[in-house]
Amino acid sequence: MIIDCHGHYTTAPRSLEAYRRQQAALFPDAAKLAALEVPRFSDDQLRDSIESGQLRIQQERGVDLTLFSPRAAGMSHHIGDAATSASWSILCNDLIARICRMHPRHFVGVAQLPQSPGVAPANCIPELVRCVEELGFVGCNLNPDPSGGHWKEPPLTDRWWYPLYEKMVELDVPAMIHVSASCNPAFHTAGAHYLNGDTTAFMQLVEGNLFRDFPTLRFVIPHGGGAVPYHWGRFRGLALDLKQPPLAEHLLRNVFFDTCVYHQPGIDLLARVIPTDNVLFASEIIGAVQGIDPETGHYFDDTRRYIDAVPWLSAEDRAKIFEANARRVYPRLNAWLDLHGYHPP
Amino acid sequence: MIIDCHGHYTTAPRSLEAYRRQQAALFPDAAKLAALEVPRFSDDQLRDSIESGQLRIQQERGVDLTLFSPRAAGMSHHIGDAATSASWSILCNDLIARICRMHPRHFVGVAQLPQSPGVAPANCIPELVRCVEELGFVGCNLNPDPSGGHWKEPPLTDRWWYPLYEKMVELDVPAMIHVSASCNPAFHTAGAHYLNGDTTAFMQLVEGNLFRDFPTLRFVIPHGGGAVPYHWGRFRGLALDLKQPPLAEHLLRNVFFDTCVYHQPGIDLLARVIPTDNVLFASEIIGAVQGIDPETGHYFDDTRRYIDAVPWLSAEDRAKIFEANARRVYPRLNAWLDLHGYHPP
Repeated sequence: MIIDCHGHYTTAPRSLEAYRRQQAALFPDAAKLAALEVPRFSDDQLRDSIESGQLRIQQERGVDLTLFSPRAAGMSHHIGDAATSASWSILCNDLIARICRMHPRHFVGVAQLPQSPGVAPANCIPELVRCVEELGFVGCNLNPDPSGGHWKEPPLTDRWWYPLYEKMVELDVPAMIHVSASCNPAFHTAGAHYLNGDTTAFMQLVEGNLFRDFPTLRFVIPHGGGAVPYHWGRFRGLALDLKQPPLAEHLLRNVFFDTCVYHQPGIDLLARVIPTDNVLFASEIIGAVQGIDPETGHYFDDTRRYIDAVPWLSAEDRAKIFEANARRVYPRLNAWLDLHGYHPP
Repeated sequence: MIIDCHGHYTTAPRSLEAYRRQQAALFPDAAKLAALEVPRFSDDQLRDSIESGQLRIQQERGVDLTLFSPRAAGMSHHIGDAATSASWSILCNDLIARICRMHPRHFVGVAQLPQSPGVAPANCIPELVRCVEELGFVGCNLNPDPSGGHWKEPPLTDRWWYPLYEKMVELDVPAMIHVSASCNPAFHTAGAHYLNGDTTAFMQLVEGNLFRDFPTLRFVIPHGGGAVPYHWGRFRGLALDLKQPPLAEHLLRNVFFDTCVYHQPGIDLLARVIPTDNVLFASEIIGAVQGIDPETGHYFDDTRRYIDAVPWLSAEDRAKIFEANARRVYPRLNAWLDLHGYHPP
């Protein structure tokens, strides 16, 4: 089977975004925020949005199941405060849960966390527990920069984040390290801030010793790891200069890269540099780049084609990238797949 | 011949840094700053620092000439104000000029600019003119984030920067877009901030239309372009989504990438994705990564080996990357090379 570990619900009904805009506009007026009507969506609305969107495309491409989370740019943790972030996250996660219940063979949930700038991430624990234990989610998205491009939080290796990590380890769920929309005009969201977030997070992990404290904590770095695999020699060299262990030992038991890299040479490099055990298939369908590549005639984000075209990958390698690694990094996925009629690998 | 377009004077006598620390500590006490003694260096001190450092290594590697500028992390435009930045830049540029006069066949100058957060970059024009017209420098380093990791300046496409660009065009000198030290704990200087700066700058150029206004302005993006070549499909797709022309037409007459990528797969990708006319040889000797790669037994930053090993590059391609592109992007280099006994290509 083919599992896409990185999909966002970018085709949600428009009134969802309208609600969020109202919430941002009313903040910090608590009375008006309390009176703001939460939008309701019919099953038909949700079904239409997904069956004409992500589900149609993933089926055309032969992708069985997507790990599905709320729109990354929509998380916008910099808007409002912890309370607005909490109500917004609950609303978004509940929509994901409904999509997953409608199409459990095709979607499984990944949680948005109610982070807020300067608020200790321990505040995300109740929503993480709810998503995993009540809604059946298998992972979460963790934003290393809830300020939206101003980078004011401590590095991911700081004890600031530890209570959340403790709960993730206890629940056995990984986090994809994914920033949200940039509100800094220097950074284009999908063209700079996302890739910078990936590179920054990885280098924080190189500098620190997080996995000594959390040997079973697992992070997925999206967008093919930002600049990291292209500069793998630089990072290996920096680790040496910093007297850290070799990266394979220091990080690669805990850190994984997705395949959201939108051309063949990039995927070839990823597959050449990063061990196959650390690469998880992903596309971000209807995501950052939505057009057709005039050089190939195929959608930029049709990443399955690139992986199929890497000449030196064996059938076993592809099975790891497409399925086995996702089952290993997101262990709760196995029970979900069993429950919904997939055969064990 | 082989021209390295990216070298910094990282081996300057230690009292230079000590002076800078004092300057930072005394700021903003104008009287004490005025009384601070500017360090003086003998020719022998400078000669030793360079002959045992960059010059020795570049000669061992068969590199003829390096475009040499003050230490990138040392620019630290976030320290002090425009006045401290000006005196610091003059001091650093003068040292570069002395090195270049000692070894004119091996070093030519590239200017540090006296940028300061929130100060219009027009303030850099006098020092740029001095460096080019009096000291014989052939280019400058332009910091898109003088705040040191807080990213508070307008994008490089904003009119904020135009007076400086007008002078660069008039002098016919390009800029390498190079951030300086990060004072934001989220960003490791060489492992995150540098690469993010490269990616961010490129995406600002994708979004804007700077080269419509300045058709002969030229930028070099260092460190192999940050994340850009690895994500070339993403950037081509984003340009399409933004209704911009194809990148070749939109940017590649004006934007060039250096080869500071410290492993073979990265250089292979760069050479595969970016047209040969847009790639300039560079190493950053005694720079970000100073060790030996245990996988190859050679220094990580010995980038000449990687370029020599790209199987599909022709002799003509290599001549462009090693020499001709640098002469084209930095046209003032030709007169310097003529003057110092190099034969035209």
